[in-house]
Amino acid sequence: MIPTLEWTDEGVKLLDQPALPARVEYKLCRDHHEVAAGIREMVVRGAPAIGVAAALGVALGAKRSSAATAEALGRELDEICEALRRTRPTAVNLFWALERMKRCFAAHATETPAAIRAALEREARAILDEDIAINRAMGAHGAALLPDAGRVLTHCNAGALATAGYGTALGVIRAAVEAGKKIEVYADETRPYLQGARLTAWELLQDKIPTTVITDNMAGHFLHAGKIACVVVGADRIAANGDVANKIGTYAVAVLAHENNVPFYVAAPISTLDLTLADGGAIPIEQRGAAEVTHLCGVAITPEGVGVENPAFDVTPHRYVSAIITERGVARPPYGESLARLARSAEHDADAARTAAPGRRRA
Amino acid sequence: MIPTLEWTDEGVKLLDQPALPARVEYKLCRDHHEVAAGIREMVVRGAPAIGVAAALGVALGAKRSSAATAEALGRELDEICEALRRTRPTAVNLFWALERMKRCFAAHATETPAAIRAALEREARAILDEDIAINRAMGAHGAALLPDAGRVLTHCNAGALATAGYGTALGVIRAAVEAGKKIEVYADETRPYLQGARLTAWELLQDKIPTTVITDNMAGHFLHAGKIACVVVGADRIAANGDVANKIGTYAVAVLAHENNVPFYVAAPISTLDLTLADGGAIPIEQRGAAEVTHLCGVAITPEGVGVENPAFDVTPHRYVSAIITERGVARPPYGESLARLARSAEHDADAARTAAPGRRRA
Repeated sequence: MIPTLEWTDEGVKLLDQPALPARVEYKLCRDHHEVAAGIREMVVRGAPAIGVAAALGVALGAKRSSAATAEALGRELDEICEALRRTRPTAVNLFWALERMKRCFAAHATETPAAIRAALEREARAILDEDIAINRAMGAHGAALLPDAGRVLTHCNAGALATAGYGTALGVIRAAVEAGKKIEVYADETRPYLQGARLTAWELLQDKIPTTVITDNMAGHFLHAGKIACVVVGADRIAANGDVANKIGTYAVAVLAHENNVPFYVAAPISTLDLTLADGGAIPIEQRGAAEVTHLCGVAITPEGVGVENPAFDVTPHRYVSAIITERGVARPPYGESLARLARSAEHDADAARTAAPGRRRA
Repeated sequence: MIPTLEWTDEGVKLLDQPALPARVEYKLCRDHHEVAAGIREMVVRGAPAIGVAAALGVALGAKRSSAATAEALGRELDEICEALRRTRPTAVNLFWALERMKRCFAAHATETPAAIRAALEREARAILDEDIAINRAMGAHGAALLPDAGRVLTHCNAGALATAGYGTALGVIRAAVEAGKKIEVYADETRPYLQGARLTAWELLQDKIPTTVITDNMAGHFLHAGKIACVVVGADRIAANGDVANKIGTYAVAVLAHENNVPFYVAAPISTLDLTLADGGAIPIEQRGAAEVTHLCGVAITPEGVGVENPAFDVTPHRYVSAIITERGVARPPYGESLARLARSAEHDADAARTAAPGRRRA
């Protein structure tokens, strides 16, 4: 699998996802402004990948900074983080990554600017590497939930292209296939941006996993017809009670799966949990421009003067979610308890990792 | 409103719906083969409009026939009806219209070929005129079900463009607006063919009814958010128990409406009932070509080698249907009884009409 994002000497390279599947090209971001634009314009998308891109953007901003003191660099970092923070509102991984980079700066604030820049670069590259490892762990936990043979429905793209590699929902599918399960994927095309048709189909075919694209409004029909064994999707933010914000249309798929007694699984790293929110009602839903709905391949499909709505995400109430697959294990209802327990164990592990690797953080 | 289909001296004129909303153009069908192609290629679509087109096609085929005897004309009519019958399998109105034209021939079989041709033309034009009257009656019955003010969701196009004029579901909306109700329409874009984005939005804006286009996967989100007062859709075939075949995605909307306690109404003429089918399981579902899914405006949106499904319709079980609006009144559950009663009253009316207008049919 070719990488979704890369740290290079020239800057941050982003696989140009709007160009897929027609062309496989990279966009080089030479500074953090270009990384922010890449996130906003969905050159890179998917909650985990947005988090990694933001971390790389902070490291790149620090590298480009000419600040001569740690204090001056700290002030610049605040602006860099703010520019990256304002790109997209829903995926909490973005804010998680920025917080982690700020903590890294704080831990090295007494060092030289050069040492701080080096520490920030190490931290960003660690976030990238960890993301792939997290997805592999998620795959190992989730693969057991999938049938030995059957069709798995997914919505949007929660794959290698939505992460640093391997994927969340598609990572679970990849792990099941690697374990010898005969999985066939049904991919909702996922209007308006067509992540399913363009990205999920492309990356699964690269791995020779049989994939069928359907329009979003066909998912209910195939669930009702008994053709789908289970559903696996990713997430952009998960509240403390297990309510899941994810790509628009996820709520509909979850209700239709529930109505037809088909398990509905969410695969997401612990960094997607937002335990500060009691439920999904407070998750900000990004509204994107009308042109994504009114135009296809540059051609207007609606008459002039029509109204348009374009919420990019919706919230699936936890009662429709059969399980949430994380890198620390599988959470089952009641999620208030199971997610809190997984989050605590992740903190414990992170503390242990920091203690075991003192070079990465000052005592 | 400009007409969807017209009988002219040159042939049958069909409003070219694939060209909408960009261009308002007509295709002239000079013989019944061109009418059949127009139905197959969805130049004309929508169950009632397909029925009217088929009737006009039979009359046109008879007009173009050089048969010198009634028997020869009868044999040609069998071929003409067969060519039209094989165009699309799901909408029962097609078969209903062909049967009615065959009955018309049978009633005039002892006359001269010229008299038979004239009778067939009168019958086809009567079917066209009746369709508009039926839609107005449906509107009068259905308008009372709509709120005095609020948003009504519709799927696909069950409007003037799907009928000879006024529309079924959109006829109900038009009648409510004419009655002074403040209705705003949310229109699912309805992939793959985009009837909602292209056709419903266009014809409602022509009538200055405020319309907002959403992608199909947003409908659940807005139903859950309490933004939709009720749903009104059309139908391609309704079984004796009230199961409804309609455009792919209708089932999903019905389940999502039911889950959120939003009324889900179906508006369809009695000619859409197929009381020979006990339930929706036996309704044939048309599978259309992959290109409708894989290409948008001529551009490939999926990678090569991907699988595609393209069922054009789905079946909504009657338990999700709040009411079925016909020209004879509103049917409520249990539909086995209420639909049979309306069908009988329609037969009674038809018999009464034939008795009252003996010139249209020989005793």
